Amino acid sequence: MREVAILGIGQTPVNEHWESSLRDLGYQALQAALDDARVAAPQILIVGNMLSGALASQENLGALIADYAGHRGIEALKVEAACASGAAAVRLASMAVAGGAFDVAVALGVEKMTDGRAEQATAALAYASDAEYEAEQGLSFVALNALMMRRYMHEYGYQHSDFAGFAINSHHNASTNPYAMYPHEITLRQFENARSVAEPITMLDSSGIGDGAAAVVLVPLDLALQVATHPVIRIAASASATDSVALHDRRDPLFLQAAFDSSQRAFAQSGTRPEDIDFFELHDAFTIMSTLSLEACGFAPRGRGVTLAMEGHITRQGRLPICTLGGLKARGHPVGATGVYQIVEAVQQLRGTAGANQLPGARLGMTQNIGGSGANVITHILERTN
Amino acid sequence: MREVAILGIGQTPVNEHWESSLRDLGYQALQAALDDARVAAPQILIVGNMLSGALASQENLGALIADYAGHRGIEALKVEAACASGAAAVRLASMAVAGGAFDVAVALGVEKMTDGRAEQATAALAYASDAEYEAEQGLSFVALNALMMRRYMHEYGYQHSDFAGFAINSHHNASTNPYAMYPHEITLRQFENARSVAEPITMLDSSGIGDGAAAVVLVPLDLALQVATHPVIRIAASASATDSVALHDRRDPLFLQAAFDSSQRAFAQSGTRPEDIDFFELHDAFTIMSTLSLEACGFAPRGRGVTLAMEGHITRQGRLPICTLGGLKARGHPVGATGVYQIVEAVQQLRGTAGANQLPGARLGMTQNIGGSGANVITHILERTN
Repeated sequence: MREVAILGIGQTPVNEHWESSLRDLGYQALQAALDDARVAAPQILIVGNMLSGALASQENLGALIADYAGHRGIEALKVEAACASGAAAVRLASMAVAGGAFDVAVALGVEKMTDGRAEQATAALAYASDAEYEAEQGLSFVALNALMMRRYMHEYGYQHSDFAGFAINSHHNASTNPYAMYPHEITLRQFENARSVAEPITMLDSSGIGDGAAAVVLVPLDLALQVATHPVIRIAASASATDSVALHDRRDPLFLQAAFDSSQRAFAQSGTRPEDIDFFELHDAFTIMSTLSLEACGFAPRGRGVTLAMEGHITRQGRLPICTLGGLKARGHPVGATGVYQIVEAVQQLRGTAGANQLPGARLGMTQNIGGSGANVITHILERTN
Repeated sequence: MREVAILGIGQTPVNEHWESSLRDLGYQALQAALDDARVAAPQILIVGNMLSGALASQENLGALIADYAGHRGIEALKVEAACASGAAAVRLASMAVAGGAFDVAVALGVEKMTDGRAEQATAALAYASDAEYEAEQGLSFVALNALMMRRYMHEYGYQHSDFAGFAINSHHNASTNPYAMYPHEITLRQFENARSVAEPITMLDSSGIGDGAAAVVLVPLDLALQVATHPVIRIAASASATDSVALHDRRDPLFLQAAFDSSQRAFAQSGTRPEDIDFFELHDAFTIMSTLSLEACGFAPRGRGVTLAMEGHITRQGRLPICTLGGLKARGHPVGATGVYQIVEAVQQLRGTAGANQLPGARLGMTQNIGGSGANVITHILERTN
């Protein structure tokens, strides 16, 4: 198989995009990525999206966006893996290039969640859970995470305020990211006094609902090294694993087995270990998810993930910066697009174009996109090659 | 890239499966295909499905079905390309094996459409059209096909009854297929007197709404030649192309450009021509689609596709048998599963296990799965190797 590089990146701001349709958002990110790569057109377009059917009565997004973006006729399709749909698109596009089927593949994540009422989005997000055994019993997605967070606090003896560092870090990093939906700092006092959503989860534990699109252009590494006008970022690892969709079906609801499996595979593929990783764009849909992701990937022992936030290790000055451009919490979480945003941001860091958020000398970045309450987890490791 | 073979096939009958859930249908076909291949588990599961969100409030089908089928942990995701979702799953699984990423990939198409009211399914099927420019203007999917059929009849001077041969052939072939939803013959008189759905389309021009699942196990050809207990069927070509989703955006609404493009690519990949094809499992969602598919793929000149039905060339005794086990019209059309059913049936013919429907000496079969009114078209050519 060929090595694969990311030749171009593009993104829209995450926001309530009343002025742009779903296809228009997709076009903007796709075109930005093509421009960045200096490539005229993709040979294949893989769209990551979860909710266009439920919220826009629109499927067949591959053909729809390919045509709207001026590429009528190319191969195009949509991939869905709940909130991990974006990374799934990158993974498939990467596989298509690695295997030799295509030389220029675009993975595009796009989601438009704010056109309807917030309750519609909440109901549609529950499609990521087990409809028959969770959602139909009244469990929203926030409620599932609340169960996990309550259990974690009970098992390990933490207070709600111990999780504040995750949200404060993401908001701080978002404050200087022009693409972020919530670019403002928050304080510990605000975190402690935030309105409850599903106890113990508050507004400031939770990512919001937003619209956005992000895209990457993937080509063989050899080609990228010849033509790139930016530092070349290679995909050192791409790995995916699943778990039960229903939380109650897992042996241990506080261990993200699929995050463990996919990160282990990614470390093995790239010949790296957790301590080699310069920064980690993780899936902070809720503060509890950050905690459990850090533990499952080997960055902290069981029951200790939250201490990385308490002790400041996750900030841009810490030993494992996370959510360096605001994460899901504060850059925003347009679900099917999020996995591609994470990869775009990792490329920004590795190229040295992250602006005020730049990590000095970052060479190895990891991203992890989580679908459902841990049912589908996709991990990428990216490396700067020159 | 490695050559890819189909080592196992599985299918459920298409029907109103009140007794089986979506995941259970998926499991049945998946397990049947694994059993047929004598393989214990897939390394990756790619699920083709269009409507599980709209009709079952369930996404994340990859993880859901992998777990339910006893394969918790494997890589799994869902792909969507409207009614071409099934063939899209086969295409991606084939690419995953050809590229070397996996040695055992399963493509599973599954759809459950009959749990709700028929109007719900009709509304959800319109997600395959352009929501903003077609569905919101009141165009259902049947109505779109009615526009095409009316235009065809006007342009080329045909009567409605000229299309009867397509439906009669599909029903005749379904009558001896134990997996078919409508296994009964129909007469010309029944066709002529069938109830109108959207003029000129009647009940007997149209495929029905059904539940079903079909699966194929894909492995490298070299491996298949070593272990297969059936004749080995290789994927001689796999090709996909798109067109505008909206019918009115096409230069010529009676030419399926994407069907032309994908079939041309498939012929080129396999080094074959239309006259080499022994049989063609085409996408007879409506009789007009059969006509246009035959023309776009080079089996008939423009305006003459319908004559293949009028003159009997599409029957099992004709020079180009189509829908040899009942097609979408009479085997049934569980949309996201259909593309996999077509490939399963092509394998039955090529192995010589099509029972009463067997075509003598079939060695080269073609399948074509169409998403939307021609927006996403995926063509496969399969060849018996031994």
